[in-house]
Amino acid sequence: MPDKLGPALERLWRVVESRRGADPQTSYTAKLFARGREKIAQKLGEEAVEAVIEGVKGDRKALTGESADLLYHLLVLWAEAGIAPADVAAELTRREGTSGIAEKRRRKTP
Amino acid sequence: MPDKLGPALERLWRVVESRRGADPQTSYTAKLFARGREKIAQKLGEEAVEAVIEGVKGDRKALTGESADLLYHLLVLWAEAGIAPADVAAELTRREGTSGIAEKRRRKTP
Amino acid sequence: MPDKLGPALERLWRVVESRRGADPQTSYTAKLFARGREKIAQKLGEEAVEAVIEGVKGDRKALTGESADLLYHLLVLWAEAGIAPADVAAELTRREGTSGIAEKRRRKTP
Amino acid sequence: MPDKLGPALERLWRVVESRRGADPQTSYTAKLFARGREKIAQKLGEEAVEAVIEGVKGDRKALTGESADLLYHLLVLWAEAGIAPADVAAELTRREGTSGIAEKRRRKTP
Repeated sequence: MPDKLGPALERLWRVVESRRGADPQTSYTAKLFARGREKIAQKLGEEAVEAVIEGVKGDRKALTGESADLLYHLLVLWAEAGIAPADVAAELTRREGTSGIAEKRRRKTP
Repeated sequence: MPDKLGPALERLWRVVESRRGADPQTSYTAKLFARGREKIAQKLGEEAVEAVIEGVKGDRKALTGESADLLYHLLVLWAEAGIAPADVAAELTRREGTSGIAEKRRRKTP
Repeated sequence: MPDKLGPALERLWRVVESRRGADPQTSYTAKLFARGREKIAQKLGEEAVEAVIEGVKGDRKALTGESADLLYHLLVLWAEAGIAPADVAAELTRREGTSGIAEKRRRKTP
Repeated sequence: MPDKLGPALERLWRVVESRRGADPQTSYTAKLFARGREKIAQKLGEEAVEAVIEGVKGDRKALTGESADLLYHLLVLWAEAGIAPADVAAELTRREGTSGIAEKRRRKTP
């Protein structure tokens, strides 16, 4: 049921956007926005470290949870940086059709 | 247009799944599967480092590209670990309604 | 005065070693040991994210502080994993004399 | 024999410093300097990811190798950022005598 991830991310995005400017005392998302882009990026990095660890361990349940954390912080970083999910969707769509290996080569040799 | 990210991820997921067992010589995704979960997790971590850097710099275009890389490697790691996008969607949905800060507290004090 | 880093690390190593088995309530190092290797590795990753951020920003003072944090957590991870500083010294010494590029190639093609 | 790490780092530091401005074609270190601070920071992050993975796995030999990689890239980043090993030594020395937990609290509440 991969179709369920899209709606879940859409709802999460709306929540993230609605927390901009909210009271940092009552919302973790508002607190993140208040701390600024650098801190949000740092949190993304920290959640990635946890996802890597659970990935290496192969703990499905823990990796699922860390993936949710990672996606959440990624969306907050997008919101802070002025990126819309549609921008990333456009980038993913742009890459479709290129063979992965050709694509990789292209990316790494600008 | 946040509704466009869902379909893009759905198409990407289908491509990722279709590359399992494909010839590693012709597909970057197949090559990743061949290298195994630990290497895929490592790549996820490396892409996260790049996303963090572009996040700190606030380079919208570069962060969009790194976000696409990050999502791609995350999906490959899910596929390798036996996680379906719907599993992560379920986890995101489960968290809805909890205040971010209450949720955070819950997560960190198991 | 590069000769001063050696003695500082030596003193830090002795402190780290002395905190094994100490009361986790009174020593942060003892607390790290109590939480185990995976958590120590996670902290190392988190400190690395902070060092990367300060490195990108080019903030000398902050990078110096994050480097100290990184080295501290690295030493705790060594202690937990049964690695002595002399083991890493031996590895660094073994690599001397190999051109960096030749060395890199060797490492990446097992 | 923790006293051996100091001299090994001192020699490594001299090599790193001597490669500034050298031909990027012949030295990996010179190539890193040529790519700039952001790229060096990225490489540090990538090596940290590998160290975290080996730390989680508890592979002593691999963690020793990744630690050497991490220290090498950290020294290159210091050189690029204008930090001397003595600066980090001074920071480590400054922290001596503070209880780890008190120190941690101090760092996190600026």
